[in-house]
Amino acid sequence: MAEGPFVRDPAFARGASRLVDLTLCEVWLQSDRRFPWLVLIPRRPGLRELEDLTDGDRAAFTAEIVRAGAAVRAMGAAMGRPVEKLNIGLLGNITPQLHAHVVGRRADDPAWPGPVWGHGEAVAYDETTEAAMRGAALGALNG
Amino acid sequence: MAEGPFVRDPAFARGASRLVDLTLCEVWLQSDRRFPWLVLIPRRPGLRELEDLTDGDRAAFTAEIVRAGAAVRAMGAAMGRPVEKLNIGLLGNITPQLHAHVVGRRADDPAWPGPVWGHGEAVAYDETTEAAMRGAALGALNG
Repeated sequence: MAEGPFVRDPAFARGASRLVDLTLCEVWLQSDRRFPWLVLIPRRPGLRELEDLTDGDRAAFTAEIVRAGAAVRAMGAAMGRPVEKLNIGLLGNITPQLHAHVVGRRADDPAWPGPVWGHGEAVAYDETTEAAMRGAALGALNG
Repeated sequence: MAEGPFVRDPAFARGASRLVDLTLCEVWLQSDRRFPWLVLIPRRPGLRELEDLTDGDRAAFTAEIVRAGAAVRAMGAAMGRPVEKLNIGLLGNITPQLHAHVVGRRADDPAWPGPVWGHGEAVAYDETTEAAMRGAALGALNG
């Protein structure tokens, strides 16, 4: 495990807003109203791959990914667009610091059945909808 | 947890070949020489999402995904194309039965930096290369 403090790649703050800290991860709301979408960043130094986590952190990461899935479902429900399938992705081709995408998908969403990553351009939330999404996600994460 | 026997969606056998069974998952080699790529299918009935696994199975699934990452690295090395980044995806938009993709990526691969899913058409292995890939993956999985 790398030494030193946790440092978040500045790229995460472009295109997402910080929502809450769980035990292991920072949770960020992706600024894209096309999909209910959270990003989890483990607060540990020097991580690139899942294999870089200790066994204990891996279990926490998996548990927090499952919690984020429930939050993404709550976001979809709050938009009147219930999630039909969760998509989980650990890619890092552009931003290599370890992070997990948790995305709610529907057969009528603009990228279905393809992946969301790299699909078209993000569509920003209006303030009211973003606040509703934050509320729905936080309610599920804290519930 | 669902009752009954494990049933694999027949879709997995189109486009992949079975490699080995680990404690929890069947491991399949994706028939696409563009990327070293394994697919893990937990042998439990009725699974669609990560949340459907018990805590114990979740830990086993994560551990087997990490082992598959090492196998994918071994495949890349055997091709003379060392893996630069692992991509892990749990999507299921087309085949909803729970499975994980573990893919080795390089900055010079045909889909970089985008995701592999839905990118162009698979390119079949020739027999010799496929045998080498199976050997490399099995060596890492059994090592």
